[in-house]
Amino acid sequence: MRWARIHQNGSPSYAVVEDDTVIPVRGSPFEAWERTGTRLKLADVKLLVPAIPPTFYAAGMNYPEHVREVAEKVGQQPNLPTRAEIGYRASNALIAHGETIVIPADATEQVQYEGELVVVIGRKCKTRDNAASAILGYTIGNDVSERTWQKADRTMWRSKNTDTFKPMGPWIETDVKLDDLVTRIRLNGEQKIEFATNRMIFGVVDYLVAMTTRLTLYPGDLVWMGTEGATANIKHGDTVEVEISGIGTLTNPVAREGA
Amino acid sequence: MRWARIHQNGSPSYAVVEDDTVIPVRGSPFEAWERTGTRLKLADVKLLVPAIPPTFYAAGMNYPEHVREVAEKVGQQPNLPTRAEIGYRASNALIAHGETIVIPADATEQVQYEGELVVVIGRKCKTRDNAASAILGYTIGNDVSERTWQKADRTMWRSKNTDTFKPMGPWIETDVKLDDLVTRIRLNGEQKIEFATNRMIFGVVDYLVAMTTRLTLYPGDLVWMGTEGATANIKHGDTVEVEISGIGTLTNPVAREGA
Repeated sequence: MRWARIHQNGSPSYAVVEDDTVIPVRGSPFEAWERTGTRLKLADVKLLVPAIPPTFYAAGMNYPEHVREVAEKVGQQPNLPTRAEIGYRASNALIAHGETIVIPADATEQVQYEGELVVVIGRKCKTRDNAASAILGYTIGNDVSERTWQKADRTMWRSKNTDTFKPMGPWIETDVKLDDLVTRIRLNGEQKIEFATNRMIFGVVDYLVAMTTRLTLYPGDLVWMGTEGATANIKHGDTVEVEISGIGTLTNPVAREGA
Repeated sequence: MRWARIHQNGSPSYAVVEDDTVIPVRGSPFEAWERTGTRLKLADVKLLVPAIPPTFYAAGMNYPEHVREVAEKVGQQPNLPTRAEIGYRASNALIAHGETIVIPADATEQVQYEGELVVVIGRKCKTRDNAASAILGYTIGNDVSERTWQKADRTMWRSKNTDTFKPMGPWIETDVKLDDLVTRIRLNGEQKIEFATNRMIFGVVDYLVAMTTRLTLYPGDLVWMGTEGATANIKHGDTVEVEISGIGTLTNPVAREGA
């Protein structure tokens, strides 16, 4: 099933997506819930970021071609990760499907998309044996990155966590067979890359098992799983789409501040 | 005034601390609030982590002697930061005043305290001109760190964000004159270090001004400001106290898993 988050009677509410309609629920997918009697047209509702994470995790370098691409760009030998070491992103930067990625006026032209599978955690879990069962479902993320800041700074605070740099959505899909998924990234309608979503260096379960040796996962926690291949610049007026088959398509326009 | 967070009628509630009593409120310091008619003895209540952050920020290296100490330990030249570049910690690791720091069974003996001033953000803010006015108050943090993991890993996921590695409390103090504060760290009652809390490389306002050029601060966001000087190992059976004059004392016992 598909879980969206929408505005309903002035506050955020979870809703079940069925074909071209959404049915708001009382409660949430993280606890008890029941359908309300309301049914809205999907086209008429504004989708919100589908989960606000207690902790916002990101795998970073997790696909072989992307590691090689990045190494080539900075003139180093590719250094494939040998352990599943999770990193972090920041909730201030989250925006929903359809919202605008705003490039700061003083950013360079090296602002790039990264299309990623996102794991949504459904329940509290610190048992490595069944970490996989803590997964509620999957959504799609775009790990927008300003490359000159990423190189220059000690942390990724502005390169990856500037407001609006983390588009995520459109919804959470709970019925997913990871091996069947294909990620496609389109810029202004033109496909830039296509890759098998699950061809990761460390898979979803590898990461969750590693993480739960040290930390407790909580309902709503997000784990962004990394991107594959080369990434390209996005600029004012562009539209970026990240499609993952079986989940959906995350679409966001791009604007430059002051342009 | 002092804001504590306590369990009241089965759910977390904010409460005003007055001398040796606490008065639960309806609402919270981040919005409208009013006192309830209840008054409890401070000694009788279990204090909770005083704020659960939407985003958990940390300055990292931000005191000159600490930078020199760390450089010496790893055999490098001290490299003082030249810009206020904020980093991150993870909410899973937060524990309250009085709760136990649990060292994993397979951690080395190089688990160390870091006593830190913590800024608590009170309102949404993305205006660098008055970033300081977004501050609700200050609390105390202990940035517990496993040094061998910190050196070995690509991220600080287990070195600093293992469950229980982020003690914080006991409460939020809103009336603080930063230049008057003194931080003292005691291990089993013996003072290990004393430093002027505000002798930072980049101060609280420097950080907030830099951050709000790129990101929106939200109510409850935390900014841990770093520690000074050398840090020492903590072990099973120890008690660590971080005192900041005018705020209070954060006390936590230490246990090793399986010991």
